[in-house]
Amino acid sequence: MQESGQSAALQDLDLRQAAIDSCFVELDEEYDILLREVCIRAAKSRISSNDTDDRRIIQAVQALDDIDRNSNELSERLLEWYGAYFPELELTGEPLARFVSTFGSRANVPESHPMFVKASMSMGSELSFADEELLRTFALNICSLYDTRRHIESYIVTAMGSLAPNLSDIAGALLGARLISMAGSLQKLASFPSSTVQVIGAHRALFKHLRGNTPPPKHGIIFNNVVIKNAPWWQRGKLARSFASKISLAARTDFYTGKRDPSIRESMDKKLNAIRAANPSPPKRESKPAGKPGSRGKSRNKKGGRR
Amino acid sequence: MQESGQSAALQDLDLRQAAIDSCFVELDEEYDILLREVCIRAAKSRISSNDTDDRRIIQAVQALDDIDRNSNELSERLLEWYGAYFPELELTGEPLARFVSTFGSRANVPESHPMFVKASMSMGSELSFADEELLRTFALNICSLYDTRRHIESYIVTAMGSLAPNLSDIAGALLGARLISMAGSLQKLASFPSSTVQVIGAHRALFKHLRGNTPPPKHGIIFNNVVIKNAPWWQRGKLARSFASKISLAARTDFYTGKRDPSIRESMDKKLNAIRAANPSPPKRESKPAGKPGSRGKSRNKKGGRR
Repeated sequence: MQESGQSAALQDLDLRQAAIDSCFVELDEEYDILLREVCIRAAKSRISSNDTDDRRIIQAVQALDDIDRNSNELSERLLEWYGAYFPELELTGEPLARFVSTFGSRANVPESHPMFVKASMSMGSELSFADEELLRTFALNICSLYDTRRHIESYIVTAMGSLAPNLSDIAGALLGARLISMAGSLQKLASFPSSTVQVIGAHRALFKHLRGNTPPPKHGIIFNNVVIKNAPWWQRGKLARSFASKISLAARTDFYTGKRDPSIRESMDKKLNAIRAANPSPPKRESKPAGKPGSRGKSRNKKGGRR
Repeated sequence: MQESGQSAALQDLDLRQAAIDSCFVELDEEYDILLREVCIRAAKSRISSNDTDDRRIIQAVQALDDIDRNSNELSERLLEWYGAYFPELELTGEPLARFVSTFGSRANVPESHPMFVKASMSMGSELSFADEELLRTFALNICSLYDTRRHIESYIVTAMGSLAPNLSDIAGALLGARLISMAGSLQKLASFPSSTVQVIGAHRALFKHLRGNTPPPKHGIIFNNVVIKNAPWWQRGKLARSFASKISLAARTDFYTGKRDPSIRESMDKKLNAIRAANPSPPKRESKPAGKPGSRGKSRNKKGGRR
């Protein structure tokens, strides 16, 4: 009696345990499904929110570069192709594409056009109708690539105006967008020290310097701004340093406040003018620190090289 | 008296000589001007006549390649750019460009479209109006590049039909045009031995073979014709040889007679079928000539490699 009672109790326990276990299994399964769902949703929302303003600008900058490269390549082809029909035409790039898409054959150039004399005296061969049609289509394509390029450019200007007003103000919209693109995001650009901003785009020269005996690069892509490009060579290093520090400041203001702050621009102008006033003429050769890299220095500086 | 008479006579002679000399100088000058004029005209007419039919076709083939490369590059950019807005869209290349240029935002996909469900459930982010407009312009550009590609292709087919009817017949218009382009002109292609035609476009493999211990290439760009591309590996070498010889024959007929000769095609079909019938199954390993290049052979043949 006692034994059977004991075994019944044991059985009962076993059953309970089994029931509890099965409950947990169900819960586990439910939990697994839930977890999976949550993870998928999280991933999807991460994907959705991944498309931030700066990613859009980066895409646009890269599309701009792609279009530049491609429209140049196709223009060269058009130049070679159309050159057989009108070798005297001294146009390249967009003007050439516009000319070909407008007129096609030389015979269609009106008397009022500045190319009329050249067109009527040309030593080029005649265009057949099929050739003319083909060349016009081809040229039209190139024209629309140039149009798209302008469209993208104005898009970048607008987008940068709202994403990074200070950066656009200091560096210009396109250069600012390019800096964001090379840094990876506005956040990354804001986190860079200004000495890094100064040499973004001059990786090769920078690592060559770090490896060995070349002078450090004075400027990366910030060279493309008139502040540096139009400066005499002896001011460029100094200008680049303060220009980069102001860019850094602007990127940080943009990223952390998002508000436009005209004082950055003012202080930059003041600083740059001070540098210009303090270095009116090229330094004398003797006063230079004898240059580690031997004969390099003046001649390379002049080219704005080492980028 | 005699002296003065003599000196007068001498003077007379001198004067005559001077007159004759000056005549010659004038003649020389005239002749120089004439010669110059003739040379310039000759050069001009050479330039005019330089634009032959095959040069036009070569330009078109190169333009085709340029457009291929550029439209691919821009399509990749579009894929990456639009991927942020509609990652589920499994289109690339032209279909993608057509999709984006037609609809722009996912929200515009009509219910009848096969992509409707994916579009309405997409995890991509929303397109702003400015982005949509920009992406559509960009996609439209790519579409028109693809359209131009087709235009050029049909131009080549037409031009090849009148310049090289036999070559188009044997190799196809595009492959024929590409052969002319790589040879430099129809004349040069006609002057090549057929063994050269067989390996046009396989320069690297050919010179590797001539330098050392690799097997010779079996086919250059003629591989692109279905005759060879769709053949089993053990027939390819034999087929390529007779195919190249017929291409050579066709190019010569085109260049020297300019008339269409259907018998070339017939004899080619007969020859190729004979090769196919004579080699129904892959050769046994033992029967192969033990292969200079060691372990190469079967596995590389299969890939149609060595091009």
